[in-house]
Amino acid sequence: MIKKQDLINLDNEDVLSPFRNEFHLPENTYYFDGNSLGMAPKITHEKMRKVIVNEWGQGVIRSWIDHEWGISPQRIGNKIARLIGAEDGEVIAADSTSINIFKMIAAALQSNPGRQVVLTEKDNFPTDLYMMQGLENFTPNQISSKIVSSSDLIDSLDESVAALLLSEVNYKTGSIAQMKEITQKAHHKGIMVIWDLSHSVGSIPVNLNDCLVDFAVGCGYKFLNGGPGAPAFLFAAKRHHHKIEPILSGWFGHADPFAFSEQYTPAKDVTRLMCGTPPLLGLIALECGVDILLRADINLLREKAKKLGSIFIDLIEEKCKNLDFLLASPRDNSKRGGHVSLSHPHGFALSRALVERGVVCDFRTPDIVRFGITPLYMRYQDLYDAVEIIADVAKSTNWEEQDATVALYT
Amino acid sequence: MIKKQDLINLDNEDVLSPFRNEFHLPENTYYFDGNSLGMAPKITHEKMRKVIVNEWGQGVIRSWIDHEWGISPQRIGNKIARLIGAEDGEVIAADSTSINIFKMIAAALQSNPGRQVVLTEKDNFPTDLYMMQGLENFTPNQISSKIVSSSDLIDSLDESVAALLLSEVNYKTGSIAQMKEITQKAHHKGIMVIWDLSHSVGSIPVNLNDCLVDFAVGCGYKFLNGGPGAPAFLFAAKRHHHKIEPILSGWFGHADPFAFSEQYTPAKDVTRLMCGTPPLLGLIALECGVDILLRADINLLREKAKKLGSIFIDLIEEKCKNLDFLLASPRDNSKRGGHVSLSHPHGFALSRALVERGVVCDFRTPDIVRFGITPLYMRYQDLYDAVEIIADVAKSTNWEEQDATVALYT
Repeated sequence: MIKKQDLINLDNEDVLSPFRNEFHLPENTYYFDGNSLGMAPKITHEKMRKVIVNEWGQGVIRSWIDHEWGISPQRIGNKIARLIGAEDGEVIAADSTSINIFKMIAAALQSNPGRQVVLTEKDNFPTDLYMMQGLENFTPNQISSKIVSSSDLIDSLDESVAALLLSEVNYKTGSIAQMKEITQKAHHKGIMVIWDLSHSVGSIPVNLNDCLVDFAVGCGYKFLNGGPGAPAFLFAAKRHHHKIEPILSGWFGHADPFAFSEQYTPAKDVTRLMCGTPPLLGLIALECGVDILLRADINLLREKAKKLGSIFIDLIEEKCKNLDFLLASPRDNSKRGGHVSLSHPHGFALSRALVERGVVCDFRTPDIVRFGITPLYMRYQDLYDAVEIIADVAKSTNWEEQDATVALYT
Repeated sequence: MIKKQDLINLDNEDVLSPFRNEFHLPENTYYFDGNSLGMAPKITHEKMRKVIVNEWGQGVIRSWIDHEWGISPQRIGNKIARLIGAEDGEVIAADSTSINIFKMIAAALQSNPGRQVVLTEKDNFPTDLYMMQGLENFTPNQISSKIVSSSDLIDSLDESVAALLLSEVNYKTGSIAQMKEITQKAHHKGIMVIWDLSHSVGSIPVNLNDCLVDFAVGCGYKFLNGGPGAPAFLFAAKRHHHKIEPILSGWFGHADPFAFSEQYTPAKDVTRLMCGTPPLLGLIALECGVDILLRADINLLREKAKKLGSIFIDLIEEKCKNLDFLLASPRDNSKRGGHVSLSHPHGFALSRALVERGVVCDFRTPDIVRFGITPLYMRYQDLYDAVEIIADVAKSTNWEEQDATVALYT
């Protein structure tokens, strides 16, 4: 039987607790959705004011050089590199995750001439599947997408496959894929590997180079707290840079953009994977979030997240007995990433009712309610209060009525 | 002989003059680069503070619905539509100009099965050429880029051409292309037409639907004053929506993104041309700039811009006689867009020296110094002072020394 005082004691002992004060805390809210949109650092609007009023307002165009706007994709990329086990010059912050997936699929296909299959699993995040489909629809002779169930994935790694595209942490269940082992198995068959780190960066320690990963992409607005629709990032291992002929060959990926030559010549390093003019305001907000994470120890964050997740599961099992919840995430916290998923027969209606009561979680089809675990700003004691609300909502709701209401609403 | 007092009188009579107070004015600066990066509206950082502190800070994920973040690409698109003669539901604000060019090239090729040539002119902005080249390099069997000189353009419109990609206002010379006439000629040969409005939106009146344009793209950070690297926009005529199968088929272009289905199904309208999660902070800043423009009358702005440009040229010819300047823009102000270009044998060194003296202009190879004309915040009297500085710099500079310095610097 978990007591609230025990959790308060854990908070008092928590060396990470000061980070909570660096965020705007939404009133009357238990925020379990930092895996979808991270909270707002207090520094962000101050920094944004400085950039808009001083740098843009006073320096205007000169700030591309004078305030180093022009190298922000690389500077922020190098910071993110430290969170994912990459080197300086292997990561840039740019575009959206979807666009970066597209770039990496094309790069992997180019790097593996004679092969056309891009393999992924059904459970991958939909935009990963969609980006494959869009390219395949346009040029069916050059790419053939193959979407298999997770259980068939390893058996599907064969010499027809050009590239394997996988998420490290599953967006529904939160389960962690074995990056090193899978990458190695793919490499044995000559397959290039692209990892989508959207649900892992800033949540679990990632070591791309140790796993010999070829390419990766990731999201800036979840655990990096970069703001709604923040720029994403991409990683390309140095050994591949010289071979990549970018399909999205915009002027900011050119070796010398301001020569304004008629012919595209890619920049010699990862910069060639940039496309248009960098989205400066979004990048600055992203950097604010990344800077906070770099001051926290990712291993300490991970340990706290495991503990938060396990206590949350224990509390649910204690307080929500016989209320139709089933754990949809791995119970073993070494196999579970930054969220805990519970299935519930009225999952959607339940998630809406919880949000109404201030327990902000989200829903994923068909019946999954996701609870994001964000150790940078989450307290142990809040788990207790939130689970009491969850139990109360699950007990007291008339599901037929509630399902009807949300059906009207959506 | 133009007198400064005459110009002060013009400012006093200028009904647009109050708009200048809505911008941060850089100190000791005559800003002639609004065609490259527009100035910062004062409202932008206030609005950004509200969005970051209140909407993101308090509402967090709920603000996608509660504060209508989710429909901002369409809302801002509809506002931009009013500046370019498009209808509601034909424009979205999204991604970068380069990415949007790519989307539109692919859409035009799909709409014209059996044809592969994408035609443009050498003088088009380089990223337009580069985006064609990247796609061609990836899939040479489906697209063949053809880059001709401006004088050969009309003769090159034949039945092999799938799409014509042109800028309405030339980034070097500022000359305005005859959109209606060229579009009509292309249509007679069954060619789809994509206009790049980067240097025309917010600067000259544009009427896409009157010209029966198929597709268009444009930039948010020039005359729209949307901030460094602001999101761009794209236009697709309603008659084409149902035929477009987006090559960049990200989840935000899906008919029902939150159904998380495995199969991409495009949204039924222009929304299908969205790709990843919308870059909210950048979009909000863009909207601040667009809202100001919507309060100004584009026809009044255009009249003022013509007058500013002509007075600038007159002043240059009066005060910079025998100083090696040549007008590189059309003298006829009905044929000249939002900047005046002067060629000068030491153009690059000259432009650097002018920036040092507070006359912020820019340089384009091989010898063009560009002076942006932005009637929203530019005063007539400043032309006088700026041209005096230009004359002084052009007279007093030791070019050999200056050329050597900038060679070291670049």
